[in-house]
Amino acid sequence: MANPILVEVLRGAVVESRHRGAVAVVAADGASVLALGDVDRPVFPRSAVKALQALRLIETGAADRYGLTDQELALACASHGGEPGHVATAQAMLARIGLDAAALRCGAHPPMHAPSATALCRAGTEPSALHNNCSGKHAGFLCLACGLGADPRGYIEPDHPVQREVKATIESVTGTTIPDERRGVDGCSVPTWAVPLKHLAHGFARFGSGHGLAPERAKAATRLRAACTAHPWYVAGTGRFCTEVMQRLGARAFVKVGAEGVYCGALPAVGLGIAVKCDDGGARAAEVVMAALIMRFGALSEAERTALDHLARPVLRNWNSIAIGALRPTEILTQ
Amino acid sequence: MANPILVEVLRGAVVESRHRGAVAVVAADGASVLALGDVDRPVFPRSAVKALQALRLIETGAADRYGLTDQELALACASHGGEPGHVATAQAMLARIGLDAAALRCGAHPPMHAPSATALCRAGTEPSALHNNCSGKHAGFLCLACGLGADPRGYIEPDHPVQREVKATIESVTGTTIPDERRGVDGCSVPTWAVPLKHLAHGFARFGSGHGLAPERAKAATRLRAACTAHPWYVAGTGRFCTEVMQRLGARAFVKVGAEGVYCGALPAVGLGIAVKCDDGGARAAEVVMAALIMRFGALSEAERTALDHLARPVLRNWNSIAIGALRPTEILTQ
Repeated sequence: MANPILVEVLRGAVVESRHRGAVAVVAADGASVLALGDVDRPVFPRSAVKALQALRLIETGAADRYGLTDQELALACASHGGEPGHVATAQAMLARIGLDAAALRCGAHPPMHAPSATALCRAGTEPSALHNNCSGKHAGFLCLACGLGADPRGYIEPDHPVQREVKATIESVTGTTIPDERRGVDGCSVPTWAVPLKHLAHGFARFGSGHGLAPERAKAATRLRAACTAHPWYVAGTGRFCTEVMQRLGARAFVKVGAEGVYCGALPAVGLGIAVKCDDGGARAAEVVMAALIMRFGALSEAERTALDHLARPVLRNWNSIAIGALRPTEILTQ
Repeated sequence: MANPILVEVLRGAVVESRHRGAVAVVAADGASVLALGDVDRPVFPRSAVKALQALRLIETGAADRYGLTDQELALACASHGGEPGHVATAQAMLARIGLDAAALRCGAHPPMHAPSATALCRAGTEPSALHNNCSGKHAGFLCLACGLGADPRGYIEPDHPVQREVKATIESVTGTTIPDERRGVDGCSVPTWAVPLKHLAHGFARFGSGHGLAPERAKAATRLRAACTAHPWYVAGTGRFCTEVMQRLGARAFVKVGAEGVYCGALPAVGLGIAVKCDDGGARAAEVVMAALIMRFGALSEAERTALDHLARPVLRNWNSIAIGALRPTEILTQ
């Protein structure tokens, strides 16, 4: 059966496009609060699980050993815009273990933050691996490798101790065993592991509450959440959805985008975890779904609802800035 | 009922994303050859009907009066990449009626052709309306306005003679009457009219064959097709799907992309028109669908099939150029 339509794209009065997908909202004890569509289908969470990928960095003591700041921990969980401050922070993380950009294996791409990309281009500078939105995560992987006493080279390979630790952590937090055939290669070349959506949501409920996690892991989760929600600019950047939501809601919401229409998050104040996958991989729709879910389950004030409404119902403008349409969540999300 | 899945996105061995949509393949006499999904739903064709929007430019004699070249006619039907040659050609069209970029109302955006965008940025030059992928269409509209003796100002408004003529042409070629509530504003600020997919396909079958069109219109269609298929670089540009298909198949295929997952085309050699709409607006999927349909219905040689296969099954690479997956059409398209 087809997943339900979650988001409609309007042009004038006509629905021009439609996004289907699945949604799981799960409590920390594993109880399903909302399940739309096929929540049993394995989904690559992509960058949405960067915070889970960073847990071992803290648990092993590497973060303390190398003196990582809260901003640097937030960057380890980030898909950042490649703004100058992000680049400098990734560089600082690498310097703490005596490495530099040459150690990164994420590949290079222009900053996602358009003005930063333009500035780089105008300066005639080629983008480096530091501008890659994953450079903070990779710097964190390298810190973990050094903390484990492993050779940092090859840290992106599935059988490197770093990726083995990361896989075991994701399996444990989400309560799943992931067979090898559910491994893909991510945009930044590390393994990504497909996990059923309901388990991703449960994992984020645990990440947000500590419920069901070993004490050391619960402590690490609390520390990462605190770092991200205190420094949301480091998790995404200027003008970005994740940053705005965490700026407005603080510790009450942790949200993280993943490529191909994925969003994960935790609402610690109400003990819920959320996982969203738009079937078609559409990022614009995943944002609308996540905004609608936060407004539905986040116990927001009226002022907060008003402030976030533009994320749930973004207006579309053309090249002349004329409002030509809008995105909107369907009733199945807002009822 | 949900439209069928037309394209799957693979990462490793796992289907990561799925694109649904509708497809209409129609013969010039209106007979349906293939109908997948809801082909009765009105769809904004967006830029996919630029060639139909350009018919009056020829029929009214404006193209001849202002001495438009075949390259310029192709650019009037284009969503071009904003490469220097495209910009110069749009400028030349405007010069023929004594106008310049200031007359364009399409808005400015950076060239879609990435190296051209980088070059512009490095030069510190702001993109102008000439770089807008629609500048050739707009230059054509301005030529039509002058040819009609109408004030070129306001040529983007629904009640301007240019847009009234364009709407009547689309209605006539597609065999539909379009009520006002099916009007949207396009990315370049002209009206776009939602038309049922099967009528779009029928319109392109007529455009490709002349069947069912008045003699003057059939002649104009032949001239536009000849211009586009002889000069496909002007219809799109370097590295683009439309350009590659028409370079390889010449007069046997006219194809044109539209925003939000639309593709239209004609296969004159076999007398068919094609219209595709991916529900979610995904451009990557619309290309795969169009490639699969051309391979199925285009009466291609084995060598042509081999040459086009990479468009029907594009390999996906990450920032390190590692092949991480692929797109593929589903069996419903290839059977």
